[in-house]
Amino acid sequence: MMYLEDMRQGDRAMLGPVQVTREEALDFARKYDPQPFHLDDAAAAAHPFFGRLSISGWQTCALAMRMMVQEMQQKGMQSLGSPGIDSIRWRKPVYPGDSLTLEVETLEVKRSASRPEMGSARRRYVCRNQDGVDVMTMEGVVLYATRPAGGS
Amino acid sequence: MMYLEDMRQGDRAMLGPVQVTREEALDFARKYDPQPFHLDDAAAAAHPFFGRLSISGWQTCALAMRMMVQEMQQKGMQSLGSPGIDSIRWRKPVYPGDSLTLEVETLEVKRSASRPEMGSARRRYVCRNQDGVDVMTMEGVVLYATRPAGGS
Repeated sequence: MMYLEDMRQGDRAMLGPVQVTREEALDFARKYDPQPFHLDDAAAAAHPFFGRLSISGWQTCALAMRMMVQEMQQKGMQSLGSPGIDSIRWRKPVYPGDSLTLEVETLEVKRSASRPEMGSARRRYVCRNQDGVDVMTMEGVVLYATRPAGGS
Repeated sequence: MMYLEDMRQGDRAMLGPVQVTREEALDFARKYDPQPFHLDDAAAAAHPFFGRLSISGWQTCALAMRMMVQEMQQKGMQSLGSPGIDSIRWRKPVYPGDSLTLEVETLEVKRSASRPEMGSARRRYVCRNQDGVDVMTMEGVVLYATRPAGGS
């Protein structure tokens, strides 16, 4: 089991890949983001940037989250959740069938002054497609438990 | 049809409500955010903040997006998508069955210098539960088409 003390500024991880099918993209868009360019090929083709049917930016965030949980499972980490995100940039469209990876870098690790049983890590994320193009970048904070007193 | 020119700084809208069932919360968590406190009642009960099974913060964002699209449909607006988000704060847990509303305020409206056929609005969002508690706040930018020359 890893704790806050096991995280270091400068730590990097390469995660993924993950994909979504066209059916999963349409299912997400119907439920949460039913804008024409996420649902309809002709509307997407007419859009000034997308060119063809692209997935919701929120689904890209959700797929990034899936890769972050994959990292936790691989390393035996458990987060306590996140207070928030300071920046998301949807830089390029993500299309159904794209294969996404996530590069994570730990920018800062801080024990909580008021709650010594936990602390936070500020992390930067770069999500890329199969051509190595940055499709989304993100920066946010994740909470982790500190090592219990007397624990190993 | 509304265009960028129809948006004003200070515009406000109250959107929603939307809900998710426990099954929808579990389905989202299994696909995108399979952390124990989003999947398992006992793990959620042991968590320092959540108390009981809470939905993924990314599902709260997705539900906020659903309300933003509801606003577009009501007003005859179409966005061209979003370049990004500058802040998300997950302030309180959201539980399956919660009834969420979204208050939107337009902070700034700007025509693009390089692409006069479009412009952007900076908007602030407050997502509340049925008890009026702010569960998430968010600020971001949305792109809109400008009124076509000669159009009405």
